[in-house]
Amino acid sequence: MKPDTAPQTSITTSQHRIEPAGNKDRRPRVVIIGGGFAGLEAAKGLGKLPVDVTVVDHNNFHLFQPMLYQVATAGLASTAISAPIREVLHRQHNVEVMRAEVVDVDTQRQIVLLKHARPLHYDYLIVATGASTNYFGHPEWQTLAPSMKSLNDALKIRSMLLEAFEQAEFENNDEIRRKLLTFVLVGAGPTGVELAGSIAELTHKTLLRDFHNINPHQVRIVLVDALPRILPSFPEPLAQRAAKRLRQLGVEIRTGQQVTDVKDDGIVIGGEFFLTNHIIWTAGVLASKAGTWLGAETDKSGRVKVQPNLAIPAHANVFVIGDTACIMQDGKPLPGVAPVALQSGKYVARVIAQQLAGQTEPAPFHYTDKGTMAIVGRSFALVHSGPLQITGFLGWLMWVVLHILYLIGFRNRVAAILQYAWNYLTYQRSARIILVDNPRPLNTHEDT
Amino acid sequence: MKPDTAPQTSITTSQHRIEPAGNKDRRPRVVIIGGGFAGLEAAKGLGKLPVDVTVVDHNNFHLFQPMLYQVATAGLASTAISAPIREVLHRQHNVEVMRAEVVDVDTQRQIVLLKHARPLHYDYLIVATGASTNYFGHPEWQTLAPSMKSLNDALKIRSMLLEAFEQAEFENNDEIRRKLLTFVLVGAGPTGVELAGSIAELTHKTLLRDFHNINPHQVRIVLVDALPRILPSFPEPLAQRAAKRLRQLGVEIRTGQQVTDVKDDGIVIGGEFFLTNHIIWTAGVLASKAGTWLGAETDKSGRVKVQPNLAIPAHANVFVIGDTACIMQDGKPLPGVAPVALQSGKYVARVIAQQLAGQTEPAPFHYTDKGTMAIVGRSFALVHSGPLQITGFLGWLMWVVLHILYLIGFRNRVAAILQYAWNYLTYQRSARIILVDNPRPLNTHEDT
Repeated sequence: MKPDTAPQTSITTSQHRIEPAGNKDRRPRVVIIGGGFAGLEAAKGLGKLPVDVTVVDHNNFHLFQPMLYQVATAGLASTAISAPIREVLHRQHNVEVMRAEVVDVDTQRQIVLLKHARPLHYDYLIVATGASTNYFGHPEWQTLAPSMKSLNDALKIRSMLLEAFEQAEFENNDEIRRKLLTFVLVGAGPTGVELAGSIAELTHKTLLRDFHNINPHQVRIVLVDALPRILPSFPEPLAQRAAKRLRQLGVEIRTGQQVTDVKDDGIVIGGEFFLTNHIIWTAGVLASKAGTWLGAETDKSGRVKVQPNLAIPAHANVFVIGDTACIMQDGKPLPGVAPVALQSGKYVARVIAQQLAGQTEPAPFHYTDKGTMAIVGRSFALVHSGPLQITGFLGWLMWVVLHILYLIGFRNRVAAILQYAWNYLTYQRSARIILVDNPRPLNTHEDT
Repeated sequence: MKPDTAPQTSITTSQHRIEPAGNKDRRPRVVIIGGGFAGLEAAKGLGKLPVDVTVVDHNNFHLFQPMLYQVATAGLASTAISAPIREVLHRQHNVEVMRAEVVDVDTQRQIVLLKHARPLHYDYLIVATGASTNYFGHPEWQTLAPSMKSLNDALKIRSMLLEAFEQAEFENNDEIRRKLLTFVLVGAGPTGVELAGSIAELTHKTLLRDFHNINPHQVRIVLVDALPRILPSFPEPLAQRAAKRLRQLGVEIRTGQQVTDVKDDGIVIGGEFFLTNHIIWTAGVLASKAGTWLGAETDKSGRVKVQPNLAIPAHANVFVIGDTACIMQDGKPLPGVAPVALQSGKYVARVIAQQLAGQTEPAPFHYTDKGTMAIVGRSFALVHSGPLQITGFLGWLMWVVLHILYLIGFRNRVAAILQYAWNYLTYQRSARIILVDNPRPLNTHEDT
C-alpha cells in the first residue's frame, strides 16, 4: 500500500474528456447535466446503447424531492429519501458520474464548462438541471423566507421548527412566544399544502406531548396564496376537501391575499402584519440557468422552449427535459412535476437511440398524465386520476404505496417504509435532531 | 387558532427558575448539565423521587457516541444513532428538558448561568458535560485535523471522505491523486482503530466498486500514535491481533512516532512528511470547562477531581460524573468510556435519593468493569472481559448485539439493526450523501 509499489500504468486515465478531433473509433458521448428524476431516467434509458454517458451533478446524490417535506418535519431521515447517484447507476457500465458544478455550455465547440475541472466534450447534451424557487422580483426575501428545494433546505427548516418550540417552552413573554409559534407558508400548491399538514401534525401530535409549557392555542400555522384557492392544479371539489381537512388540523388558510412585504420580524399578507420569524416560501418556480448557457429562448419562469422532440431549435443534439424545459402540450406548458421529468427523460433516451440507429425520429413527446396526488396530514390524501377523485384514507394508502415504490433503491425503500410505519403507529418523529452549524462540544477549553 | 382566542391563564409559566427564597413547600430541584450517557442515566435514576429535574444540553438530542464512526463512514444515518432527549425522557413527569448553553455556575448562589436564558436555580447540581479532543498545546491544528466528537464532526468527515474519492476519480495529476487518497488518523485508541478499519472497508469494498478510475494501490490509510502500540487499554495479544487485521485491511500502522507538525497540505510523522489534506484527530481527551465553572481542582486533562461519592470537595450538593470527572479507583483514574458514564450517573441518583431520605450515604462509587470491545472492520472485533479474550467473528457478533441493545430508543434500534444488516449483506453504505454547506439549486438565477 506504499505509493511507490503501485504500478504506474494500471490507472485508467479519463482520456475522453477533450477528444482528439480525428478519433473516429470512439463511441458518441452523451453528457447529462443533473441527476434528478429526468436526468437519471435518461441515463437509464441509454444504458444498453453504444454510447458513453457522463452524468454531471453538483451533488453526489439523487434526491426524492416529493418527500422532502417529510425530512423538513422530522418524519424521515435525510438519507432515507436520497441515494448516491453512483449507487443508482453502478450497474450501467457505460455511465460515469461526476460531481462538479456546471458554469456554462459552449454549443459551438460542444463542451460543458465546469468549475474546478476541465471541460467535458459532448456529442449529445441532455440538460436536466431542475428549478428553484421564484421570489417574484424580491430576491432579498430569500434569506428571510427560505425555500425548500434541497436536502439542506429541508434540514434547515427542520432545525427552525424544532428550535422554535425549544425557545417557546422557556419564553415567558407572551408576545415573543406567539411570534415563535407562528409559522407562515407562502404558496398553497402541493408542496405548501403537504408541508402545512405535516407541520400541523408534528406540532399537535408529537411536539406538544414533549413540551409541557406550550399552550396549543398559541401555535399558529398560516397558509397563504395570492390565487383564489389552494391547489389550483386539482379539481375544485378536491381542493375544497383539502382546505377543510387543513382547517381541522389547525391551519389558517389565506387565499386571494398577496404577500406585500417580508421583514426580519414578520410578513405582510393582504395588508395585515403577522409577527413571526418562521416563513417558508414554496410559491413559484424559476428554472435553472440552462437557458442562458444555451442561448435559448425561455418563458417567463426561465424554462427553455423546446421543440416537439425536446431538442432546442438551434441545436438538434441538445435536449432540455424535466422542470428546466417549457414543454407545450395542448396549447399550454406541462407542469413541473416528477412524472413529466421521468417521461421526458425516457423519451429523450429513445430519440437518441433512434438517431444512432439511423431511424426516423419517434413521434413528438406526449405526456401521459396518470394523475396527481397530495397528502394532507396523517392518513388523508387527494388523488385525481382521470375521472377518479378520491380523498381521505384510501387516497392516503394509494399515496404511500406509490411514493414508496418510486423511491429509488431498495434499501431506501425499506428504511422509508419502516420509518413511515413507525411514525404512523406512534406519532413519533424519528428525526427530530437539530444540527447546529457550529459543532462544538459543550463549552470546552477553546483556547488551550 | 387566532391568538386572541387563547385563554391567557392556561399557560404554565416556569416559575421555578429563580425561586422565591422563602418558598418552603417546593420540591428540591436537581439540575443536570449534559444529556449524554451519564446525564441521562442520572435523570432516569431520579425519575420516581420527590424532586424536580432539569436536564440542560446545548443539543436537543442524545448521541450514541460509540457508533459515531459509523456515521462518519456512511454506514448509518445520523438519526439512527441519536434520539431527542425529550423523547428519551418523556415518560418521566418530574423531568424537564432545556436546550441551552451553559456559560458558568455560581456555586455560592446555587445557580447555573445560561446564554440567552435566565439563570437556573439548583439544590443539587450534576455536571456531565463530557470531553473534547486534546491537541496537546496545538489548538491551531484543530481546523487542519478535525476531531470526531459530535454528529456534525462525523457528517463533515463523511463528506470529506466521499469528496476525496469524487475528486480523485477525475484527477489526472498523479501526485494530487495520491494526496487526495491519503488518509491519516492520529490516535490509535479504540476510536482511531475503529475508524481506520471502517474507512478501509468503505474504500476497498464499497467505493472502489463505484469509482472506476481509481487505482486501489494509491489509497493510503495511515494510523499514527506516539505510544509504542495500538489500543493500549487492551491486553497486548489482542492489540497485536487487531494490528494484524488492520494491516490485512490495508491500514499502515505507525506507532511510537510523534506528530510534530500539521500543515495545510500534510503532516509530519516521526520526521517523515505525508502529503495529504485528510487528517482526522482522535488522540487525547480534554474535559469540558466544568472545572473552571466550579472553581474545582482538575487533573492534566481538565477533569474535575471528585470525592469518593462523586461530589466536589467544596460543595456536597455538586456532583461531577462521566468523562468530565477524574474518578480515582485502585490508585488510577477511570477511563472516559460509556460504562463509567452510565454507572456514575446511576450512582449519583442513588446518592441524592438517600440524602433526601435522610439515610447515610451509600458506599463510595465503585466502577465494575464488565469488559472492553473494539471493532476492526467488518465482522472482526476484540472483546476483553476479565479472563475472557475473544477476537474475530464471535467477538463481532457480541459487539453488534451489545451495542445495538445499548442504543437508546426502540425505533433507533430497529433502524440501526436493519441498516447494519443491509450494509453487511451488500457492502452498500446507505448514507453516502455529501451535504454541502451552501445548499443551492444547480446554477440558478441568483441575481433575479
